[in-house]
Amino acid sequence: MDYYSNHIKTLIDELGRLPGVGAKSAARLAFHIINMPKESVDRLSDSIKAAKANVHYCKKCCTLTDDEYCPICKSAGRDQSTIMVVENPRDLAAYEKTGEYKGLYHVLHGAISPALGIGPSDIRLKELMQRLGTEPVSEVIVATNSSLEGETTAMYISKLIKPTGIKVSRIASGVPVGGDLEYIDEITLLRALEGRVEL
Amino acid sequence: MDYYSNHIKTLIDELGRLPGVGAKSAARLAFHIINMPKESVDRLSDSIKAAKANVHYCKKCCTLTDDEYCPICKSAGRDQSTIMVVENPRDLAAYEKTGEYKGLYHVLHGAISPALGIGPSDIRLKELMQRLGTEPVSEVIVATNSSLEGETTAMYISKLIKPTGIKVSRIASGVPVGGDLEYIDEITLLRALEGRVEL
Repeated sequence: MDYYSNHIKTLIDELGRLPGVGAKSAARLAFHIINMPKESVDRLSDSIKAAKANVHYCKKCCTLTDDEYCPICKSAGRDQSTIMVVENPRDLAAYEKTGEYKGLYHVLHGAISPALGIGPSDIRLKELMQRLGTEPVSEVIVATNSSLEGETTAMYISKLIKPTGIKVSRIASGVPVGGDLEYIDEITLLRALEGRVEL
Repeated sequence: MDYYSNHIKTLIDELGRLPGVGAKSAARLAFHIINMPKESVDRLSDSIKAAKANVHYCKKCCTLTDDEYCPICKSAGRDQSTIMVVENPRDLAAYEKTGEYKGLYHVLHGAISPALGIGPSDIRLKELMQRLGTEPVSEVIVATNSSLEGETTAMYISKLIKPTGIKVSRIASGVPVGGDLEYIDEITLLRALEGRVEL
């Protein structure tokens, strides 16, 4: 990259480390940033440091938040008897966007993956079990991803919670709404068949 | 986005303003950044401000650089008699990667676009003409994009330079190497036909 000067190279390098940003996108972003007004550049740069400095885990549900407790845990209107367990804050956001779920959440920050060396103690499972001991929870809905890691984590959580007598459920796996059977993989089709409900 | 706290929202907003970064990618990047080690976050944030503060136009070719002159203009080994005109520094980089072109460059920072209200005075054309008056240039190769704006700019430059007696050429337009005729648009096919060379 001798055709770029040092500050440009450094910026391209740093942007290229972000997930999903390849060498060409990094260069495009870098030149875009250099051409932005100084105030916008400062806002971008400052928001990065500010988020890192001020964002931490919610003391209750472990999602990322600025305050001691996240807006959902602080809200009086949520059903305290249900906890939905998700892998990360973006999954929480996905369910919040539906506007239908009124219970609480618990964010694991990952899923069990023997292949990647991520065990049960590497995700926020201990915090979940502590909550079950102190909060009036009657159901835990496991909404980890429908991947190998997500399923492994769901099974593990289910085994962990069963002895406490609290109900554990798993979100349904099947054909997505609007999905065309022809284009759906075999495992999903089999799951949809196994999970069939009477009409 | 009430499910995200303020610092996270601000960061997602700022990242979402970048070109090609949609709402979902912005959230993914934001959480990735929050989870990065503090040193990496500082490096990213600082490289953004440093690039903006230190990068400016090369006094000769107008590409972006840290110093008064860019590495190419400073290099003794380049052919001073040829200037390749490109739209932006990434196009310059694309030709540099070929390793074959040994002349100088001139970066316009845009192309003439009546639709976007970008006229000849909005791109670095005046600087190009000044160079032609002082540097020992014998050929100007116009390597603007093969788009409507790029072609318009090429025509304009050609008309501007012709009276000076300096040779003006345009990079060839045609079927990309390895390209399958079947999948190539008609305009490119016609261009390739017009630009045919005797074997």
